Amino acid sequence: MIEEKSIQEFKNGDEIQGFFIVRKVEMKLSANNKNFLDFTLSDKTGEVNGKLWDCQEGQNKEFPIGSLIKVRGNVTEWKGKLQLKINRIRLANDDDKQNIEDYVQAAPIKAEEMFHEIYEYVQKIKNKDIKGIVEKVILESKEKLMYYPAAKSLHHAIRSGLMYHILRMLRTGEKLIEVYKNVNKDLLFAGILLHDIEKLEELDSDELGIAEYSKEGQLLGHISMGMNKISRVGQELGADEEIIMLLKHMVLSHHYEPEFGSPKKPMIPEGELLHYIDMIDARMYDMEDHLKNIQPGEFTDPIWSLDNRRLYKTLLCDE
Amino acid sequence: MIEEKSIQEFKNGDEIQGFFIVRKVEMKLSANNKNFLDFTLSDKTGEVNGKLWDCQEGQNKEFPIGSLIKVRGNVTEWKGKLQLKINRIRLANDDDKQNIEDYVQAAPIKAEEMFHEIYEYVQKIKNKDIKGIVEKVILESKEKLMYYPAAKSLHHAIRSGLMYHILRMLRTGEKLIEVYKNVNKDLLFAGILLHDIEKLEELDSDELGIAEYSKEGQLLGHISMGMNKISRVGQELGADEEIIMLLKHMVLSHHYEPEFGSPKKPMIPEGELLHYIDMIDARMYDMEDHLKNIQPGEFTDPIWSLDNRRLYKTLLCDE
Amino acid sequence: MIEEKSIQEFKNGDEIQGFFIVRKVEMKLSANNKNFLDFTLSDKTGEVNGKLWDCQEGQNKEFPIGSLIKVRGNVTEWKGKLQLKINRIRLANDDDKQNIEDYVQAAPIKAEEMFHEIYEYVQKIKNKDIKGIVEKVILESKEKLMYYPAAKSLHHAIRSGLMYHILRMLRTGEKLIEVYKNVNKDLLFAGILLHDIEKLEELDSDELGIAEYSKEGQLLGHISMGMNKISRVGQELGADEEIIMLLKHMVLSHHYEPEFGSPKKPMIPEGELLHYIDMIDARMYDMEDHLKNIQPGEFTDPIWSLDNRRLYKTLLCDE
Amino acid sequence: MIEEKSIQEFKNGDEIQGFFIVRKVEMKLSANNKNFLDFTLSDKTGEVNGKLWDCQEGQNKEFPIGSLIKVRGNVTEWKGKLQLKINRIRLANDDDKQNIEDYVQAAPIKAEEMFHEIYEYVQKIKNKDIKGIVEKVILESKEKLMYYPAAKSLHHAIRSGLMYHILRMLRTGEKLIEVYKNVNKDLLFAGILLHDIEKLEELDSDELGIAEYSKEGQLLGHISMGMNKISRVGQELGADEEIIMLLKHMVLSHHYEPEFGSPKKPMIPEGELLHYIDMIDARMYDMEDHLKNIQPGEFTDPIWSLDNRRLYKTLLCDE
Amino acid sequence: MIEEKSIQEFKNGDEIQGFFIVRKVEMKLSANNKNFLDFTLSDKTGEVNGKLWDCQEGQNKEFPIGSLIKVRGNVTEWKGKLQLKINRIRLANDDDKQNIEDYVQAAPIKAEEMFHEIYEYVQKIKNKDIKGIVEKVILESKEKLMYYPAAKSLHHAIRSGLMYHILRMLRTGEKLIEVYKNVNKDLLFAGILLHDIEKLEELDSDELGIAEYSKEGQLLGHISMGMNKISRVGQELGADEEIIMLLKHMVLSHHYEPEFGSPKKPMIPEGELLHYIDMIDARMYDMEDHLKNIQPGEFTDPIWSLDNRRLYKTLLCDE
Amino acid sequence: MIEEKSIQEFKNGDEIQGFFIVRKVEMKLSANNKNFLDFTLSDKTGEVNGKLWDCQEGQNKEFPIGSLIKVRGNVTEWKGKLQLKINRIRLANDDDKQNIEDYVQAAPIKAEEMFHEIYEYVQKIKNKDIKGIVEKVILESKEKLMYYPAAKSLHHAIRSGLMYHILRMLRTGEKLIEVYKNVNKDLLFAGILLHDIEKLEELDSDELGIAEYSKEGQLLGHISMGMNKISRVGQELGADEEIIMLLKHMVLSHHYEPEFGSPKKPMIPEGELLHYIDMIDARMYDMEDHLKNIQPGEFTDPIWSLDNRRLYKTLLCDE
Repeated sequence: MIEEKSIQEFKNGDEIQGFFIVRKVEMKLSANNKNFLDFTLSDKTGEVNGKLWDCQEGQNKEFPIGSLIKVRGNVTEWKGKLQLKINRIRLANDDDKQNIEDYVQAAPIKAEEMFHEIYEYVQKIKNKDIKGIVEKVILESKEKLMYYPAAKSLHHAIRSGLMYHILRMLRTGEKLIEVYKNVNKDLLFAGILLHDIEKLEELDSDELGIAEYSKEGQLLGHISMGMNKISRVGQELGADEEIIMLLKHMVLSHHYEPEFGSPKKPMIPEGELLHYIDMIDARMYDMEDHLKNIQPGEFTDPIWSLDNRRLYKTLLCDE
Repeated sequence: MIEEKSIQEFKNGDEIQGFFIVRKVEMKLSANNKNFLDFTLSDKTGEVNGKLWDCQEGQNKEFPIGSLIKVRGNVTEWKGKLQLKINRIRLANDDDKQNIEDYVQAAPIKAEEMFHEIYEYVQKIKNKDIKGIVEKVILESKEKLMYYPAAKSLHHAIRSGLMYHILRMLRTGEKLIEVYKNVNKDLLFAGILLHDIEKLEELDSDELGIAEYSKEGQLLGHISMGMNKISRVGQELGADEEIIMLLKHMVLSHHYEPEFGSPKKPMIPEGELLHYIDMIDARMYDMEDHLKNIQPGEFTDPIWSLDNRRLYKTLLCDE
Repeated sequence: MIEEKSIQEFKNGDEIQGFFIVRKVEMKLSANNKNFLDFTLSDKTGEVNGKLWDCQEGQNKEFPIGSLIKVRGNVTEWKGKLQLKINRIRLANDDDKQNIEDYVQAAPIKAEEMFHEIYEYVQKIKNKDIKGIVEKVILESKEKLMYYPAAKSLHHAIRSGLMYHILRMLRTGEKLIEVYKNVNKDLLFAGILLHDIEKLEELDSDELGIAEYSKEGQLLGHISMGMNKISRVGQELGADEEIIMLLKHMVLSHHYEPEFGSPKKPMIPEGELLHYIDMIDARMYDMEDHLKNIQPGEFTDPIWSLDNRRLYKTLLCDE
Repeated sequence: MIEEKSIQEFKNGDEIQGFFIVRKVEMKLSANNKNFLDFTLSDKTGEVNGKLWDCQEGQNKEFPIGSLIKVRGNVTEWKGKLQLKINRIRLANDDDKQNIEDYVQAAPIKAEEMFHEIYEYVQKIKNKDIKGIVEKVILESKEKLMYYPAAKSLHHAIRSGLMYHILRMLRTGEKLIEVYKNVNKDLLFAGILLHDIEKLEELDSDELGIAEYSKEGQLLGHISMGMNKISRVGQELGADEEIIMLLKHMVLSHHYEPEFGSPKKPMIPEGELLHYIDMIDARMYDMEDHLKNIQPGEFTDPIWSLDNRRLYKTLLCDE
Repeated sequence: MIEEKSIQEFKNGDEIQGFFIVRKVEMKLSANNKNFLDFTLSDKTGEVNGKLWDCQEGQNKEFPIGSLIKVRGNVTEWKGKLQLKINRIRLANDDDKQNIEDYVQAAPIKAEEMFHEIYEYVQKIKNKDIKGIVEKVILESKEKLMYYPAAKSLHHAIRSGLMYHILRMLRTGEKLIEVYKNVNKDLLFAGILLHDIEKLEELDSDELGIAEYSKEGQLLGHISMGMNKISRVGQELGADEEIIMLLKHMVLSHHYEPEFGSPKKPMIPEGELLHYIDMIDARMYDMEDHLKNIQPGEFTDPIWSLDNRRLYKTLLCDE
Repeated sequence: MIEEKSIQEFKNGDEIQGFFIVRKVEMKLSANNKNFLDFTLSDKTGEVNGKLWDCQEGQNKEFPIGSLIKVRGNVTEWKGKLQLKINRIRLANDDDKQNIEDYVQAAPIKAEEMFHEIYEYVQKIKNKDIKGIVEKVILESKEKLMYYPAAKSLHHAIRSGLMYHILRMLRTGEKLIEVYKNVNKDLLFAGILLHDIEKLEELDSDELGIAEYSKEGQLLGHISMGMNKISRVGQELGADEEIIMLLKHMVLSHHYEPEFGSPKKPMIPEGELLHYIDMIDARMYDMEDHLKNIQPGEFTDPIWSLDNRRLYKTLLCDE
């Protein structure tokens, strides 16, 4: 029986049909010397490898990367991973009445709304120089911010993921300064808004939020690129030297450990807090993301980005 | 000119007088074969070594540890540290109208108020088993909680420091679950309330909040002692096995890294968050504590508990 | 020519037949869209993957895990590992006159004999409280001890492996106190008998000695579970607090390094010795286990549990 | 007998006289309640602590830091270190006919000569953009380069030490490209000339080459400051983006390991070579500096900057 | 269209023919129960896996390891690696007029020339004892030196690679002592000539430069074997004890870090320099070797021997 | 009241007299410009610093290192350490009827007895080549073995300490092969007898067992020196190559970790066991040595050689 299933619901032995986005496609030669197409397909719920056996020379060009396709096939298992043996395949067309955006993993809040809320936080900064620098950087970055993910393959690697990350950090920061009242709000908000901003240049992302590292990203990294941007914008605005230095220090130190890219640890409380807020948001995202796929009382598989920990979903989750 | 100064204000060359608490006192023999008394003295602002030269056999018994004394003397420098050469010394008496508690470093909120607020957080826990365990543990611990520090020499090593640490963590936790709504409030609050509770047995503290490690503390540590307490109380109350296990897991994993005493990392989001809330509170305390002694634009000396970082006090602090 | 071979004797190209235990079995779909059964089979000498091609829907239920089967097939090589292509397969039956226990890797001494010897060591403990705790724990654990392995996949991962490990450690301990006469025999024996006892709860094992981690095992680990058991039994017997504390310290510290699960290193000589006796027994087991498969003058493959060392079998082995 | 000795020649028990520079001076109170002056004195060969006992209030102002003084005194030993008990002291005057520069440790080549040779290397760069950036940076930095040390307390911590370090690296680089002909000379020379250039801002040095870290130096470090300078100068000259990026990558990666300040390792051969040339020059300097004080056949004390190695002076040194 | 291509030029989908050396050959059984031959083939430019499907029992003996074969086949991709599906295969014969040496990766200078130049460096050593030891070792080793690689699979793993490594190091050393004039030339040259000499015994290499570890190599390693050789030769020649000790120290310390096999770090400048010259030559070789396969503006894949760095080929390479 | 006390019994404030060995003596100049003698004195129980104030030029020559002196003085405390202010001092003479050996810390068994027992173990080795090598080495080393310590400042740093260490290891080894019967006794005994033998050359010791590192010891270390000795002796006796190699491998690997001097880990069970027997003996010695100075229920100070652990003396020690 053919079922309509999202990728996350696939089970070994299923016969399914559905719409998917083409992430990668390559023509290959099988051991028995025939052409086949090797796909990576995705929808809102995940990714899967697909094989179309016995195809024609050049058929890969029919299904360009980023296009939406309709597929029917069998779910099999290979080396412990599910795979889709494709039986039928065609491009989606207008009659299908599908919207490609419904098949892309994206932040749970609309990009415009997020930008609006972030911009309000910028307005809460009182120091003129800090506000000036942050506002200029955020406005210059708006176009890319609308769809960029926060990473190539780790936490928030989804459309508009970077903005979602910044937004939740701002909300958290606003809460924490109610408890730790000596922290300078302007510096903290600015640090949150700027800390990852050069991921917009470290990565090359398409509008679906799928990213690769850029050349400059590999040779320099978003931390030194971000410091450079603050220097440039600060100089253009004639901002105070102390302020430029502090903002750069926060960006420089926010990864905390040298082996994660920060040669200096935070030397001001606002930098220390920025680091922990960043960690909390990344970890809560990752944990939620992995726990959603299992049942209460179960463990996940070891998760690479969490030092190979297996997470446990408590029986209290139901309550 | 003789000045009334607190220890933090001492400068090389000063002639001062004031009231101090005796922390340590020992009779020693000087190089020229005479007896002298070697003191450690403290007030609300810090500690200092003091020497009373040419004293009598047995004079050390006049100034028992924990007593308040009145002293006059000269501030000198030895190996880069200030020292007090004592010229006059006597026990404080009723005519001095001094309250010893005014000379002890303590949490900035009164112990009774803190306990009241903490107890309200206990009441916010909905799950009966969790609330039952936490309430029993907190009430059993009330007496010691009122004055115990959170450490022998690190963050919150002050009278009632442990309760102050727990309280600020609860306030922070309450804020964070407004942003991370999937986190189980009951588990998080219980984790915060219980995570360090066996510091009450790992340390032996007097009522001034000055502590040493206990025998059991050295051989077992507060983490395994805390797990044991949860087991015992849980069993006495007939609590659910899953809940006992989860609370123990949170205590076990809250130091996060094996080399800091946690053989397991958190496998549930509540444990992850507990760790970061703990870190934030410890670090904000330490940073504030060291920055209060320097001027804007200056750096502190390297701070051992912060990986020998030197902290910077920004020029924005004045605004 | 079809040969009767044990798994350890398999060579690429062999055609073999024999009896094996089903460890795992799963129905899968091959690239050419047909069902096949994917087995893990074992006998006394090792494990091998087996494939039964072109089978029927539901046929996997014919061969339940833990059953003994008779198989005929070809040995092939895949990615450097041997595999069995199954040509014929059926359940063993009474006419085969096979005893499943002959196909399970087990300790080289009978479980009853080992328990008897271990129990004699318990009787050699003179201190009443220590003896009381150890005796109660061992008797409560007897049923599981009879067949539990000492690990899921490392040293002594065989039926009754845990008891074999404890027994050889006791023998070694008894020898060592003849040389190091200041060591307290009671503590040392108790430490050996209790150090791994909660592996009985950390793992879930079937009676063939095949184990998985339990939920509590993953979240808490056998070290803290073992400490908890000593607390409970000690309290039930009203044992001396110092003794309970020392036994817990030995369990807590026996893995020695934080990254292996011991937040404290041994602070008493008996704990230090326990650690080294544990290491010696584990390493001698592992080395013997790997060296038995190669010839004098040869090296083994790199062994994961020995930091990827390759072992050498000396030419003196023959003498 | 009073001898004229340089600091390096001092022995316990000597009575000496000589000229020295005042590095530090402080009025202190001795245990017997009298004022004394505590000096750090230096000459071309080293540093020594000096004490002037029983001095007058305010006498420290007679001997300002950086002044040349004439001293007579006794060499004593304290905690394994030599000390100078000052018997007579006065400022040097014109009649002494001493030149303060003769008492400062400095590079063995004159600053003007070194700058000249370095500038010739700049002229050997063929690529216009690379040469433009390097030339502008070097000319802007000329004034400070003339006397800056390369470090506060490690290798080349002497007057004009930074320029001496750069110069020997250029000579080495020129040699190495004769062997490794694929290396791009322009990039390599530029990397050597720029790699440490912001030590001129990371440190605050006086004209004697004695340095402290600057505020920006502590918060940002010379590596990110250097990258920023290349960005700015590159933009001002409209240089090619690829070239700016490569020069920044070389500066970023020249410390090689994250824990020494380089978040990226070199990804181009020129960067790899820059790192090793830097290491060789620092190590050869340090080794020569320590070996000059001992005799053939002897070992030095453990040297902190060389991982506490003790160096050996071979008997072949005499030949 | 069938093309003549070297292995480095292979692309997925090519149909090629050419001559290759057989590195490994094994008869295996495919999933569909037929024999096939699994080859590792190489030429001057690299290695590739080859499959000959459906072959006869015993056919593997037709193509002995080290023989030159002529092959026609299709290039396919498997798990991201190229593979050759062999359609035709035969041994090369006299009519092919091929010289097997043209298909082996080898140092770019002829072995005889290299030996000649190395021997001249030996003659430049002035100290008689040092020269005596080095000359004896080099002459005894000449036969193997002519073809031995410097490693099994890392840098200079090519025919005569060890000699090429030594030669370039000597050239570099000769240059460096022009800058660092205090370095003892005799010791440095001797260290370079001897440091890896027992790779000739640590590895077993055939005349094509393909090596495996020897038994002694695995149990003792080339460093302690080299020290032993120096002892023996030094004693035979009655050399000075100090000199034997220094040469052994240089060999012992040249890997610098304990985890790379040197229990002592260099304690003499000549040893320090030896280490860095060794590193430079290894790294320049590796980088050149990987960069030759990519275009300017591209990155390589992560390279295991360079800590998984990806190298970048600059756009300046073309100039 | 003047008491006769051993150094271990000294308390601050005591007035004592006794006999001590001069370990170090140096003439120094005090702050008030007078000569004093600075001693290190020892007896069987420990070491103490002593000062003789106001002494004559040249008086240090009266008390040569290694002489026995009679002293009367006051025990004082300085920086937390006890010190002896010497009031009277003279060389011991015949009338004192003291034996200097009674004032030296030494192994608890007589050297001749230990050598006898060790030599019996040599005779238990059956393999002729192994026995030949070991016997020759032990006989050649006999003279030094009689008094050498096993270390300069760590475990067994006492007269005849090395032999005591070897002897207890042999006893332990003999026990362990009763449990681990597959271990080759000849190899194990030989490994124990040879593993530290070149400490006899790595250290320079006087007959009281007080040692310093030799030049060769520092540059090469006892491990490579020991391998060299085995090579030489093995060659002289024409021993089997395999046996020489195995004995060298055991010496090479017995420190186990690269950072402790073993570039290879043991690849044979006899080497593995050697390592653990070595560890056990060193640790049992150290622990006993530190525990003897404290009371049951107390902790020692942190012990450097035990990773700064504090040891606990259990209340069971009394039983």
